[in-house]
Amino acid sequence: MPDKTPFAPPGTVADLEEGAALTPKFGADGLVTCVATDAASGDVLMVAHMNAEALAKTIATGQAWYYSRSRGALWQKGQTSGHTQHVVEMHIDCDQDAVWIKVEQTGGACHTGHRSCFYRAVPLGKAGAVTLEFRDERIFDPRAVYRGGN
Amino acid sequence: MPDKTPFAPPGTVADLEEGAALTPKFGADGLVTCVATDAASGDVLMVAHMNAEALAKTIATGQAWYYSRSRGALWQKGQTSGHTQHVVEMHIDCDQDAVWIKVEQTGGACHTGHRSCFYRAVPLGKAGAVTLEFRDERIFDPRAVYRGGN
Repeated sequence: MPDKTPFAPPGTVADLEEGAALTPKFGADGLVTCVATDAASGDVLMVAHMNAEALAKTIATGQAWYYSRSRGALWQKGQTSGHTQHVVEMHIDCDQDAVWIKVEQTGGACHTGHRSCFYRAVPLGKAGAVTLEFRDERIFDPRAVYRGGN
Repeated sequence: MPDKTPFAPPGTVADLEEGAALTPKFGADGLVTCVATDAASGDVLMVAHMNAEALAKTIATGQAWYYSRSRGALWQKGQTSGHTQHVVEMHIDCDQDAVWIKVEQTGGACHTGHRSCFYRAVPLGKAGAVTLEFRDERIFDPRAVYRGGN
């Protein structure tokens, strides 16, 4: 966890669930899960993580900031690609360990070049091995957009 | 991880991102994150976790099954409350460590009595402490519905 955080530590279950104070319950890794949905379509665009600093920056600026577990670094969505997320609404869940943001997505949210990271459907009603169904075409060429960032 | 799983182990990044095989990348805890959205409204109802068995059961039955980290147990959503989730669509994300299900939710998804776990909004554009805004009324009395389950 960062040394400086604007958030008070989480209290009791009742405080977390019924309280009006934002007291995020960061995991042992210092992170909460964040789900970003498309404000227009309702589609889930991506699932990522925020540490206290990323959450505070997102709240203060209305632009989505995340924490990359693989790179161990804070990042603003779109800082490399230009594919920023303007946050229209933010919600916190009952036990304050997950955040939902509705965003206006510029370009594509996924580093693979798709609008959403969830570009493959899983057919239902079957047991055993599953063959995925591709639902979305690429909307940009990731090789042309990225040089190591997101 | 359970001993029996219908899923092959994850391959290379290219296999995970571009492949048509569902090879979920379970974490060290044996879980993937699952986001459930309301098929009608697009609202995020809850964020929870699935182990291989929960994921396989959800795919086979079209009813949402999860794995409770706090109780260390597989559970079918609604098994106590009757507030089941019929899965209309399932998607997997680029690196296959997160699942998105669109569901028809009976009753409320949240154990607090709300339709969605995300019943409080976080106002944007401010630095410092944050006061949450309650957006949804309870739709059921959790004390009357639950006797220890979800």
